[in-house]
Amino acid sequence: MSDAFEAGLAALRADRSRGASALARFALGVLADAARETPARDPAELRARLADCADRLARARPSMAPIANLVAAWSGRLAALPAAELGPFRRAAARVAEDLAEESRRAVGAAAAHAAVRIGPGATILCHSLSSTLLAVFDRLAGRRVRLIQTESRPLYEGRAAARHAAGLGLDVVLISDAQVGLAAAEADLALVGADALMPDGAVVNKAGTLPLALAARAAGIPFQVCCERFKVRPAAWGPVALEAMDPAELGTPDLGPVTVRNVYFDLTPADLVAAWITEAGFSETPPKL
Amino acid sequence: MSDAFEAGLAALRADRSRGASALARFALGVLADAARETPARDPAELRARLADCADRLARARPSMAPIANLVAAWSGRLAALPAAELGPFRRAAARVAEDLAEESRRAVGAAAAHAAVRIGPGATILCHSLSSTLLAVFDRLAGRRVRLIQTESRPLYEGRAAARHAAGLGLDVVLISDAQVGLAAAEADLALVGADALMPDGAVVNKAGTLPLALAARAAGIPFQVCCERFKVRPAAWGPVALEAMDPAELGTPDLGPVTVRNVYFDLTPADLVAAWITEAGFSETPPKL
Repeated sequence: MSDAFEAGLAALRADRSRGASALARFALGVLADAARETPARDPAELRARLADCADRLARARPSMAPIANLVAAWSGRLAALPAAELGPFRRAAARVAEDLAEESRRAVGAAAAHAAVRIGPGATILCHSLSSTLLAVFDRLAGRRVRLIQTESRPLYEGRAAARHAAGLGLDVVLISDAQVGLAAAEADLALVGADALMPDGAVVNKAGTLPLALAARAAGIPFQVCCERFKVRPAAWGPVALEAMDPAELGTPDLGPVTVRNVYFDLTPADLVAAWITEAGFSETPPKL
Repeated sequence: MSDAFEAGLAALRADRSRGASALARFALGVLADAARETPARDPAELRARLADCADRLARARPSMAPIANLVAAWSGRLAALPAAELGPFRRAAARVAEDLAEESRRAVGAAAAHAAVRIGPGATILCHSLSSTLLAVFDRLAGRRVRLIQTESRPLYEGRAAARHAAGLGLDVVLISDAQVGLAAAEADLALVGADALMPDGAVVNKAGTLPLALAARAAGIPFQVCCERFKVRPAAWGPVALEAMDPAELGTPDLGPVTVRNVYFDLTPADLVAAWITEAGFSETPPKL
């Protein structure tokens, strides 16, 4: 593959700050560039090379469903494209990737709008990690006197960026360590998270710390809701999800002798802890389908 | 008061690394020194000045029951001491403080022994924060092929010291971020914590993150046990517990604009999540009495 593609793939693998939707759209951008620039003598050779690109991108971040889903959607539409001439085929393949990114963006916006409309003035919401979907929810809460309790989200503290974004919109924001989530739930009206993936039964794959948050919400008697586009749903055929472990050095632990430092990035919250799934299709008490 | 007493009181207030039992014994040491050195013309004046010392120490760390309990026990024994002559009264008052510290130390050792005897070879235990009682449990597990999953315990990461101590004893130790506690519970056989205080009904005041750990243990179907000396039990007359908040700067958060950083050090785990209370009196499925 080209250096540009390899650089895009490496960036996708290394990114710890953007959520799954944003990275899926980034992967589509890598595919659009590959469609335009991958050397090929004819459309058949380009198809073969792009199929390889798609396969590698789809497998880059196994916990994040929308990457593989949107890449698969792209491959499916590509198969239906006419490919008589190389130039038009390149442009059409790139356009398909850009269209899918726009569909994903619109779905996220619609899901966020469905979540925000149910959050009234004076409400306190408890959120974990950083999600482009939750940022879109915050955008819609500006001016509504909403209070946000946001976890910092170890190891890389991306919750701080979520807190800064919400405070910039005028929300009243309290930042807490992940360990304080037990008490915080008792102060909140609603726990709301994004997702890296939804299992076919509605279980939520999201940043580590989401399961403790959902348990704390249940214990405090407040609903735990997940807001995401339907591209997050893992097809049943994919089987169990791999919860990615990252470099233990991200925890910044000093040398402790023979101690193993573990940095599993995601956890899995069972569907029975989820009060509602909010997608572009609306608010639902049953899990969405892809 | 003397400079030495004020310095001891300030150290008691500022200490973030030692648990409640260790700090209660430190407070008794401050009292022993005060008994020996506080200027007074006669035993009656010394009694009055020591009563003031005791009162200030007892109120220094409101979430940590053993400090107030052991100081109250000291005051009670002091009231029964003959005080005809100043010199013998000073020595007796200091001796009472040292005796109580030794009683506390023995109680912690006995509680740890009762906990350790039930942890068999091959077991995996999940622990949070740093507790001198848990270190004493680890000491008794050396050589038993026990695996420890230990949280780092934000904000000051005192879980790292617990991990280092256990690894030095030959335990197989995995250190995790507090956010990973949800998944970790599913791998463990037992969740075990110390306590800063026990409420009269058996609810557990301990480092923030304990409640999420207990909820994760319940969800994973493993017992959540608390091991501590009975000096941790708060008398009912004390009423509700104040959960101390510490300097937000401990979280190391960069400037995020108008975001409030919160650093509540403790949380409260309800008694119905506690499978057993292990004290110097043994293993019990009902809450201990002081």
